[in-house]
Amino acid sequence: MKEPAAAIADTGPALNDQLRDRFRTTRRRTVALCAPLTPEDMMVQSCPEASPAKWHLAHTAWFFESFVLKEFLPDYRLFNNDFLWLFNSYYEGFSAFPEKRLRSSFSRPSLDAVLRYREHVDESVERLLEAGPDPDALKRIELGVNHEEQHQELLLTDILHAFFTNPLRPAYFKEDEPAFLHNQDLATSSGKAPTRPDFHHFEGGLREVGHAGDAFCFDNELGRHPVWLAPYALSNRLVTCGEYLAFMADGGYRRPELWLSAGWATIKEKGWRAPLYWSKEDGESGGWSVFTLRGSLPLEHLLHVPVSQVSYYEADAYARWAGHRLPTEFEWEAAAEGCPVEGNLLESGRLMPISSNSSTRWGDCWVWTGSAYLQYPGFKPLEGALGEYNGKFMSGQMVLRGGSCVTPERHIRSSYRNFFAPETRWQFSGIRVAS
Amino acid sequence: MKEPAAAIADTGPALNDQLRDRFRTTRRRTVALCAPLTPEDMMVQSCPEASPAKWHLAHTAWFFESFVLKEFLPDYRLFNNDFLWLFNSYYEGFSAFPEKRLRSSFSRPSLDAVLRYREHVDESVERLLEAGPDPDALKRIELGVNHEEQHQELLLTDILHAFFTNPLRPAYFKEDEPAFLHNQDLATSSGKAPTRPDFHHFEGGLREVGHAGDAFCFDNELGRHPVWLAPYALSNRLVTCGEYLAFMADGGYRRPELWLSAGWATIKEKGWRAPLYWSKEDGESGGWSVFTLRGSLPLEHLLHVPVSQVSYYEADAYARWAGHRLPTEFEWEAAAEGCPVEGNLLESGRLMPISSNSSTRWGDCWVWTGSAYLQYPGFKPLEGALGEYNGKFMSGQMVLRGGSCVTPERHIRSSYRNFFAPETRWQFSGIRVAS
Amino acid sequence: MKEPAAAIADTGPALNDQLRDRFRTTRRRTVALCAPLTPEDMMVQSCPEASPAKWHLAHTAWFFESFVLKEFLPDYRLFNNDFLWLFNSYYEGFSAFPEKRLRSSFSRPSLDAVLRYREHVDESVERLLEAGPDPDALKRIELGVNHEEQHQELLLTDILHAFFTNPLRPAYFKEDEPAFLHNQDLATSSGKAPTRPDFHHFEGGLREVGHAGDAFCFDNELGRHPVWLAPYALSNRLVTCGEYLAFMADGGYRRPELWLSAGWATIKEKGWRAPLYWSKEDGESGGWSVFTLRGSLPLEHLLHVPVSQVSYYEADAYARWAGHRLPTEFEWEAAAEGCPVEGNLLESGRLMPISSNSSTRWGDCWVWTGSAYLQYPGFKPLEGALGEYNGKFMSGQMVLRGGSCVTPERHIRSSYRNFFAPETRWQFSGIRVAS
Amino acid sequence: MKEPAAAIADTGPALNDQLRDRFRTTRRRTVALCAPLTPEDMMVQSCPEASPAKWHLAHTAWFFESFVLKEFLPDYRLFNNDFLWLFNSYYEGFSAFPEKRLRSSFSRPSLDAVLRYREHVDESVERLLEAGPDPDALKRIELGVNHEEQHQELLLTDILHAFFTNPLRPAYFKEDEPAFLHNQDLATSSGKAPTRPDFHHFEGGLREVGHAGDAFCFDNELGRHPVWLAPYALSNRLVTCGEYLAFMADGGYRRPELWLSAGWATIKEKGWRAPLYWSKEDGESGGWSVFTLRGSLPLEHLLHVPVSQVSYYEADAYARWAGHRLPTEFEWEAAAEGCPVEGNLLESGRLMPISSNSSTRWGDCWVWTGSAYLQYPGFKPLEGALGEYNGKFMSGQMVLRGGSCVTPERHIRSSYRNFFAPETRWQFSGIRVAS
Repeated sequence: MKEPAAAIADTGPALNDQLRDRFRTTRRRTVALCAPLTPEDMMVQSCPEASPAKWHLAHTAWFFESFVLKEFLPDYRLFNNDFLWLFNSYYEGFSAFPEKRLRSSFSRPSLDAVLRYREHVDESVERLLEAGPDPDALKRIELGVNHEEQHQELLLTDILHAFFTNPLRPAYFKEDEPAFLHNQDLATSSGKAPTRPDFHHFEGGLREVGHAGDAFCFDNELGRHPVWLAPYALSNRLVTCGEYLAFMADGGYRRPELWLSAGWATIKEKGWRAPLYWSKEDGESGGWSVFTLRGSLPLEHLLHVPVSQVSYYEADAYARWAGHRLPTEFEWEAAAEGCPVEGNLLESGRLMPISSNSSTRWGDCWVWTGSAYLQYPGFKPLEGALGEYNGKFMSGQMVLRGGSCVTPERHIRSSYRNFFAPETRWQFSGIRVAS
Repeated sequence: MKEPAAAIADTGPALNDQLRDRFRTTRRRTVALCAPLTPEDMMVQSCPEASPAKWHLAHTAWFFESFVLKEFLPDYRLFNNDFLWLFNSYYEGFSAFPEKRLRSSFSRPSLDAVLRYREHVDESVERLLEAGPDPDALKRIELGVNHEEQHQELLLTDILHAFFTNPLRPAYFKEDEPAFLHNQDLATSSGKAPTRPDFHHFEGGLREVGHAGDAFCFDNELGRHPVWLAPYALSNRLVTCGEYLAFMADGGYRRPELWLSAGWATIKEKGWRAPLYWSKEDGESGGWSVFTLRGSLPLEHLLHVPVSQVSYYEADAYARWAGHRLPTEFEWEAAAEGCPVEGNLLESGRLMPISSNSSTRWGDCWVWTGSAYLQYPGFKPLEGALGEYNGKFMSGQMVLRGGSCVTPERHIRSSYRNFFAPETRWQFSGIRVAS
Repeated sequence: MKEPAAAIADTGPALNDQLRDRFRTTRRRTVALCAPLTPEDMMVQSCPEASPAKWHLAHTAWFFESFVLKEFLPDYRLFNNDFLWLFNSYYEGFSAFPEKRLRSSFSRPSLDAVLRYREHVDESVERLLEAGPDPDALKRIELGVNHEEQHQELLLTDILHAFFTNPLRPAYFKEDEPAFLHNQDLATSSGKAPTRPDFHHFEGGLREVGHAGDAFCFDNELGRHPVWLAPYALSNRLVTCGEYLAFMADGGYRRPELWLSAGWATIKEKGWRAPLYWSKEDGESGGWSVFTLRGSLPLEHLLHVPVSQVSYYEADAYARWAGHRLPTEFEWEAAAEGCPVEGNLLESGRLMPISSNSSTRWGDCWVWTGSAYLQYPGFKPLEGALGEYNGKFMSGQMVLRGGSCVTPERHIRSSYRNFFAPETRWQFSGIRVAS
Repeated sequence: MKEPAAAIADTGPALNDQLRDRFRTTRRRTVALCAPLTPEDMMVQSCPEASPAKWHLAHTAWFFESFVLKEFLPDYRLFNNDFLWLFNSYYEGFSAFPEKRLRSSFSRPSLDAVLRYREHVDESVERLLEAGPDPDALKRIELGVNHEEQHQELLLTDILHAFFTNPLRPAYFKEDEPAFLHNQDLATSSGKAPTRPDFHHFEGGLREVGHAGDAFCFDNELGRHPVWLAPYALSNRLVTCGEYLAFMADGGYRRPELWLSAGWATIKEKGWRAPLYWSKEDGESGGWSVFTLRGSLPLEHLLHVPVSQVSYYEADAYARWAGHRLPTEFEWEAAAEGCPVEGNLLESGRLMPISSNSSTRWGDCWVWTGSAYLQYPGFKPLEGALGEYNGKFMSGQMVLRGGSCVTPERHIRSSYRNFFAPETRWQFSGIRVAS
């Protein structure tokens, strides 16, 4: 089976420089994303799925320290011996690690210490890159960069939840920061009313899926293999807040026939009756508002914007109500293969889904598919503790595809597989129906 | 898409007689399976998954009453108006129904009343059959028969758990009853030591899966569709208790690298360290015994018998430890298609797995596959409340294939899909590895 | 400190005969109380507090076997070795015992076997009594009788909950059985409208509380000791359903200022909005009905009947709403001392509270007091495992006084202390206010 | 009934000055206690009982704003309208308030803003004091000061838990700060071996308990009333770590006969086998260490120091093991009345219990009593929302007496009643036995 990131292994100085650039860009951006946050903000862990922003800063440094520097930089000096287990997330094969829920107690090390930790790691990786590391080290650095990009998305997802949990509902986004963001005029971009959804038809047949080529991918995208697809159609766009409101108005959350059994049990137990960040701040008679990284916005201004922060159960129920279904991950992949990655991604600086008529497959919200997250034929986890990166989560989760408004553009591709449990709602997860 | 059981719709008196025979046989057998049980035994509901035996008797009558008699027998008189909602299991579209956990409080109606209810329903179905019912009614009767066969398996599975929960650990099986069982000499049949597992190799390629032909099937087996299979190999037999013991002795329950993350969390939370019905009755230093429908048996007598009552997590961990993996449901189906259904099934009367070197695909234990229970392309649930039979459970469950020692022989086929949540252990569920 | 039941120790044949009579009466009555029940009814355990009726039958035999026969009847032969641990309730010092929740799985031994167990024990105790046992044995028999009386009350309390849990809501009571009950005309007795509550005033001062004299008492009633009581007043009767309905109509369950913090948390978490057995069977617009051992009765017929099956939290909130408070256990005891035990107790056969203007302190419902269940000065638990009878529960419980419509008349006295956790609702527990 | 703080109501400028001094001292000390903490530390809420330090800072300001300034300072301008509900703890009668668990998400307002809030409140209270407020306002200020003293203790208790939860286990205490603390040489003070415990004997009889005189007290200390005490004896000192270790070594946590039933269930469920802050950092074979505000210390250095952070259940089990019992709250109070308040209290700066042979009743650890926290005869909660201060918690809690090493000296008195649920362990709660 093909090794991930094999390309780098065979290449010379040019690709090396390219990796260095991407390393630098990525590392800087993680810090830049924290610009609007105070050290106190970076302590909040507001739900079991989330981590404090400070922890994200530290853990992404830990990843380079543990899997790159410790193994490949001969004279590497640990920044702090304790950090080696303190910031391990879940790699049982690497070291013991603290329970996830304890991360909210990590007031020490301080943010300053964590930032120094990052600098220490950065300098060390730069030294390693200068030394002309062996191909395995380069592969690991590339993996570390991709790992950090995932945490950039998580950091924003988690801080959105943190601010939603704070009864004051502060906004992350300030007009003039973070400096790197090219802020768009939200009112304009969200104001374009999308046309009725249009279905693109695909022939199906025997198609290859999974990662192809030499560029980086995660182990869960391999091996590439044929699948048979019956003819299918995909909506040209995501379901909007307005459409979702119609589902709600039609008794969407009160009709068991629309729901999977586990979904119905979940919404009854949790009392769900709208997407996670929709709330009625002025009582039942008032209108809905939607909490975003730009603060609370009236739903009536967002009716043409894709609905986000819905669970798989809600996506599935909506699709059934609409007379459609969710696509499989392979229907999505076959449709997306070859399409350039462009759309409302992290680089747009919008930090929330926007209205769009385009039929692009990327951005705004991850798309819940009807596919369980399982291994591909011939799946081979990475060696050692890194084998826990993806493989051990292949149970009880559904695949999402396509990226969101907080996903770095370079991070994704048509074979990319995101995955969450079906009751997960704190992600930028939306709905694209198929039939 | 093809309708299930379409064959019956087109047929005349002969098939009608055949259905009547199967109806009678099935209905009698459910009652016969209760012969070793007292009315008190039939009250026990010892875990959330299980139901009391009396409830199974009543619910299977309810199914015919609700979906056959009420719709198709013009002058049908309900046996008891309350039973119509009392014995509804989970059909939201049919009526309100009691919470499942309340079934253990159904001391009324008495067992006698439930048996009269069954007779009332039996006579009414016979009347309907004599009247030459329309094809839709016949299809529903056939569905009812298949439904009842499922509950026969559940009844035995549940009573095994009930007797395991009773600290006295009574045995279900008595040598001379139930009369219909052809009891085998257990000592002999379990004494045959299986050879080392042997792998059968299959070419794979583009194969059709799902139900073919006109005979009965459930909606979840349709529509038949092509899948691409890479070349694969299946073990010729199930994993034995002795092999599983070796996994345990090698630290199987203490090594996180062998487990899915959710599986590891589950065994830590629940304190699992052996299959469900293995216990050490004489303290840690004593040997394991295995609880069966024939009572507690020493594990040392069962080393060649397939291990049973393991969860998906345990099956998956065992396979990883053994250097193999679980088969997909389609690998299993492609291998089984065309093989006659024979093996250690309910009719054998053994009521527990037995040793075997045969490479049959059927019986002893259901085989956990690595496939999530999801809809096939073009899946169309049955109309009305019956659409809840299978479809709404297509979330969070794994497919099992092949039948067990308590599955009626006529009930299964190569396209048959059983399904349970990955932490489920009270079923006759075992392991067949693939590579 | 005084030993309980010392009187018997010093007495001759006459008291011996008296004890034999009480033993026989009590043992027969337990079985008689089961006359309306089927073996299936006697399997139901519908809440964690409750036990199956069959278990009560067996456990009360076990008590005599374990604490009387095994110790005092020289050649006593155990009925069944397993029963010695199987029917132990909670005496850690006696043997291991099954978890309480497993009692619902005790389909074996059968009811018949349990009845034979009782006969075996009865005959053996009779033999012991004939032999002229030593005073300690007589004390233990007396304790066993009192223990069994407690379980008679529990048996009825538990079966009421079992029948309430059964969606068919069957009635325990049939007009002509159990034979020993002198059934009263309910309509008449409940129809008497009580006058407005009247307060009886007491001077207080230094009073002795706790059991006095030589007759039997439990260890928790000793030692008798002085307490200082400020002047106080007690209502002459229990709060009625009609008065409680007024509390509800005045927002009783929606006003946090009326509730203890733990009570408010409890009613919010559990969704309580009425006493346990009040329900609206015909939807919100319909009237309340009250479930009793005589089946469901319309609340409007019971407005003058004491409210029952309320928790301490509800009793406390009601009292606060009414501008009163709950009495302390010593206020109750000082008022009751010297009053003959008469009222609506088990022997009345009514099996539910009835209307009454009388100022008797006994019967209808146990009265929640504002006193925590704690040890008296000089408290000394019984020796050995029997020391666990009362003492280990002296934490987190409130004292109730006075007896209920299912308490045997001979069982109670002014120093008698019943106790339950403040959220307990399945008892015949009511409200008598003080000020 | 006597009003609390009546003295102030009748007094002139001198007492006014005294209150101003105490107000200033108290307010400054709260901030001073935070000197060793970073803004990140002050975000941590590591268990449901605890609150972040920043929240304590804000809530104690809120108390003055809500119950003093808003009512008594005519032109008072709210610092921030949102703070009025955001920092309400549990006063249902005052405003809606956030769930307690959300306090860990209050990254906004920032610590700076909270400190400005405190200054705003301080200045306003000073203005009110200068204006010569009416007696009711003075009473409220005095209540606010006492309230803040309680939160000083909680702040230290909570930060100890926060640092214990952080896997790095940082120490709060630094030798040179906080500046106000007069640091003692710990090694010396803890090194004094106490003699064997000695019992002081008391005659008992009819004693008055509850607050007497005109000085401030909480409503739960009133009204003063007679109680009858049998002769009793109190140990002259607290149980030491060494004595508690002997209890553990004698199977203390494995012998059900030593425990209340609820206690036994608790230690089995939670897996307790030592006081909260005792841990074996080097595995089972290593020695115990004890976590304190001065960091982790070896247990062997603390054998003569009072054991702390034990639950009521553990205190009760220890006392039973030692052949003693816990004192009642009135036994403690009668013994302490008239004794000057001196001992190892907050002002000592030790911040942990120390060894002592003295028979003082104050300091080191709160003493669990065997008394449930219930109202005194004639209890009258404060008017309005302040009535929720104490009264609504009179359920399910046990009384503690005497103060701890983090209790301000001026805060306590012989009638002072502290209270926590019996499973509570994060307090400086210890054991003093009685007999």
